[in-house]
Amino acid sequence: MSTSTVDAALTDEQLDAFERDGLIVLPGRFRPDEVREMNAALDGLMREDVPENIRERGSGVVRTAMGLHLRHELFGRLVHDPRLLVPARQVLGDVPLYAQQVKVNVKEAFTGEQWQWHYDFATHHHEDGVPEPLALNLHIFLDEVTEFNGPLMFVPGSHRDGPAATSLDTTTTSYPLWTVGPEVVGPLVERGGIVCPKGPAGTMLMFGDALVHASPPNMSPWPRRIFSLIVNPVENRQRTDGRADHLHHRDLTPLGAGPPR
Amino acid sequence: MSTSTVDAALTDEQLDAFERDGLIVLPGRFRPDEVREMNAALDGLMREDVPENIRERGSGVVRTAMGLHLRHELFGRLVHDPRLLVPARQVLGDVPLYAQQVKVNVKEAFTGEQWQWHYDFATHHHEDGVPEPLALNLHIFLDEVTEFNGPLMFVPGSHRDGPAATSLDTTTTSYPLWTVGPEVVGPLVERGGIVCPKGPAGTMLMFGDALVHASPPNMSPWPRRIFSLIVNPVENRQRTDGRADHLHHRDLTPLGAGPPR
Repeated sequence: MSTSTVDAALTDEQLDAFERDGLIVLPGRFRPDEVREMNAALDGLMREDVPENIRERGSGVVRTAMGLHLRHELFGRLVHDPRLLVPARQVLGDVPLYAQQVKVNVKEAFTGEQWQWHYDFATHHHEDGVPEPLALNLHIFLDEVTEFNGPLMFVPGSHRDGPAATSLDTTTTSYPLWTVGPEVVGPLVERGGIVCPKGPAGTMLMFGDALVHASPPNMSPWPRRIFSLIVNPVENRQRTDGRADHLHHRDLTPLGAGPPR
Repeated sequence: MSTSTVDAALTDEQLDAFERDGLIVLPGRFRPDEVREMNAALDGLMREDVPENIRERGSGVVRTAMGLHLRHELFGRLVHDPRLLVPARQVLGDVPLYAQQVKVNVKEAFTGEQWQWHYDFATHHHEDGVPEPLALNLHIFLDEVTEFNGPLMFVPGSHRDGPAATSLDTTTTSYPLWTVGPEVVGPLVERGGIVCPKGPAGTMLMFGDALVHASPPNMSPWPRRIFSLIVNPVENRQRTDGRADHLHHRDLTPLGAGPPR
């Protein structure tokens, strides 16, 4: 993967937009051949009967394939890619970052379930004892994302007053999720609206740990796979480790040096 | 309501498009003040505790308010409006039409449920014994319809080879629905794609009885009310009347003459 550090860097304008909105979309960051290789690797990994493959409550198909950097060398290299790490470092400063979670969210055609309004830090804080909402979620679209295949919806600026109030939903989705209720989402949307980034495979998206988002079910015949790397400063690491390693990795080795040889 | 018959008529081009696609969108057919009056009338009707107000399985809020032309004079007049009837007659010919169903589908903010892929004729045929897929569904948006508040998605041309195969779903939605499975929707979408008409309140939409459609849940803070009049040629009336009158009205008095004085 040959894109240089300079190419990967965000402009000052983009950094301002990220601070204001809590997310930024970066089209065309990964090439079609790279995306094809990721999808091919994923096809194999999804056939494995392992706890890292989380299945939908109803259909039993794989909803999320986790721990990917430990399961395939392609993803092992990808978590060190400057196109992911350079923007993250511009936001977080030049501090050691570890790979907190490395997964692909698979919204299969016709069966992909909805995700209620939530933000990731609620889980990271309540379940793992992460102190501050500093982690960044770095997405790569592995399919074209359209209005029809269960795209993520974000409330821009919903991170600005600090993490919103949450409650634990154990019924709607395939695993317990700290959700943000209508009485909280309503006023946030009134202020910031809703955006729904779409685009071809290879599009990159970065958003913050306290940004409120949701997604509708995928009712279309088109799958919607998204690679997701969550990076977190080592300084801000989890304080408890009650959850499985693939949900929050315990290896705090700083990213950026490449995989061990 | 003053729009003339000439204004209401579809052009030859629009009629061709309707024949090809099975639907047509007609922006700005109803004025903002008319829509406001409809919404005000509906607010009152929705507070009634009657069987015509169908409630969501989960939340208990009104999902569909039916039999409206018999419950409020505004809707009693609306079913005779040339803006609805003239396009319908252009498609069906100059034959007597009756009001088969008169409702508002309410997708309330945050709670509005999804509708699986289906077409209306499956219910009209299986439940009511309607012989042919001739009925037309005439919609008026009573709120702005956006990508976020549970808009209808249609498969253009899905009516062309005759009604698609169906099966009865008694679990997903708040009442039993004849749905079209993934193995049928997939090829239809491959041929025709998916369209999702959006637009301000007052937009009109007409679609045929065999056209495959669906809608995602409304996860947004914005409600999505749509008025729906289903007209059917008297000649093609129901052959059985096992369902409640508000689900398929038994009064075959031809539309267009106005309400009885």
